[in-house]
Amino acid sequence: MAPLFEQMTIVGVGLIGGSLARAARRRGLVSRFVGAGRGARNLERALALGVVDRLETDHRAAVRDSDLVVVGTPVQAAVEVVRNILPAMRPGAILTDVGSVKGPFVRAVEEMDRGEVRFLGGHPIAGTEESGVEASFAELFEGRRTILTPTSRTIPGVVDALRAFWEGVGARVDVLSPEAHDRILADISHLPHLVAYALVDCALKGEGLPYAAGGFRDFTRIASSNPEMWREICLDNREALLAALRGFEESLAALRGAVEREDGQALERVFRRAKEGRDGWLQDMGWA
Amino acid sequence: MAPLFEQMTIVGVGLIGGSLARAARRRGLVSRFVGAGRGARNLERALALGVVDRLETDHRAAVRDSDLVVVGTPVQAAVEVVRNILPAMRPGAILTDVGSVKGPFVRAVEEMDRGEVRFLGGHPIAGTEESGVEASFAELFEGRRTILTPTSRTIPGVVDALRAFWEGVGARVDVLSPEAHDRILADISHLPHLVAYALVDCALKGEGLPYAAGGFRDFTRIASSNPEMWREICLDNREALLAALRGFEESLAALRGAVEREDGQALERVFRRAKEGRDGWLQDMGWA
Repeated sequence: MAPLFEQMTIVGVGLIGGSLARAARRRGLVSRFVGAGRGARNLERALALGVVDRLETDHRAAVRDSDLVVVGTPVQAAVEVVRNILPAMRPGAILTDVGSVKGPFVRAVEEMDRGEVRFLGGHPIAGTEESGVEASFAELFEGRRTILTPTSRTIPGVVDALRAFWEGVGARVDVLSPEAHDRILADISHLPHLVAYALVDCALKGEGLPYAAGGFRDFTRIASSNPEMWREICLDNREALLAALRGFEESLAALRGAVEREDGQALERVFRRAKEGRDGWLQDMGWA
Repeated sequence: MAPLFEQMTIVGVGLIGGSLARAARRRGLVSRFVGAGRGARNLERALALGVVDRLETDHRAAVRDSDLVVVGTPVQAAVEVVRNILPAMRPGAILTDVGSVKGPFVRAVEEMDRGEVRFLGGHPIAGTEESGVEASFAELFEGRRTILTPTSRTIPGVVDALRAFWEGVGARVDVLSPEAHDRILADISHLPHLVAYALVDCALKGEGLPYAAGGFRDFTRIASSNPEMWREICLDNREALLAALRGFEESLAALRGAVEREDGQALERVFRRAKEGRDGWLQDMGWA
């Protein structure tokens, strides 16, 4: 494939940013790669591993000649990164990110003076429990979804350009509003993380943990995720998470009521609906 | 090893009962195996597969000459099975079960006239999502825990006899009161199942399921468990499950409060405690 971009800067070359550079290089989507960030050691690893061709600790110098800039830092740092680099970006360059929560970030960036920089938020639903550039690999996005989140202020053509880029690294691209994205992620990811943390916290207070087995291990795997990162995600996506939590507390209260009044039919109805829904979803996903 | 028992009857030759017979045969713990149950076809499979040597659809005939009887039917059927077979069992024979909830079953059996039959409840914490004798295999209990639940009415020596038997098939044996067993299983198994069913039920109401990925799949795997079986377990272990649920609802409400008041420190404290607790547990289990 002919290169879509001449030079791509990745600010924050971790698992996601590093994998994106590796994938774009392998597919020939970009000619040159610049890595930027605060951790000199991580950046040097990125250079040594051939993930980037050049490194810069000065973010503005890093973005100056690039026609694609991807911010891969944690969500709350990302706003300040963008504020800093915007004046140094060249006219017509595309700016995007890979953060897990879109509403607050997209709003913050759209409120800045972006000059002729073309911005569009993005979120690849991909990752592992590992982090850092050492864990990055070119196949991370293959067959996974990436959600792009345009608004009424998005410049036409940017969605198509980033869609081509993400499809080029193997992802399936969906286009959603930032708000729909955040609602969906709250339901399928942020709420389950909160629930898993609460379950483990609860189990730690009891005497049962030594007896727990493989089912418990799988169920609580996500409770071994990075605490700082999840603190940030929960706060950034506060509104949608609270709404998802209300729905879950209602579902759980309904099940509690059925146990309290020994209503086996109600229990079985919900269990069966959940099982059939999940089994159908597994089939849709090609996993069953 | 010299046989511990001359003849073992398994009432309900499914995944657990079938695996127990296979394991006991391989280790030479029992000389002859009789399968009993209502499903003639399943029993015939058990015979054809060499899991049992003889089959009986008449439960009383099945137990008559056995010195070990294992009830492997679902919990609520098990009480009626025991009521039926007790008068036919021979004096000194040992009666046990493999049910997931111990309190109500143990109380019900201890209230029956057991003559000289020696009873002790048991629960191997092992299983797969499969069921039926076709899915049974001799290694199911290796390295897994089996909990024996004696009471003040348990005849001395029976704990030792069943401990030797379960250790013989490769299990690690723990001895707990029926109440402690039920409390622990509510925390580490029954509550997580209820929570997983509620989460999936909730996700089905939203628009996010098509975007869910591997994390969601692993987290909700147990929501594909058998609805009838879990209806019974939730009702049988009602008291302990409700207590576990109260604790969980409190943990979750504390997290919700932290999100509501944007208390990142409180969130991170719980997330970190859960992560460290879980990571430590994985190490204790030899899984990390």
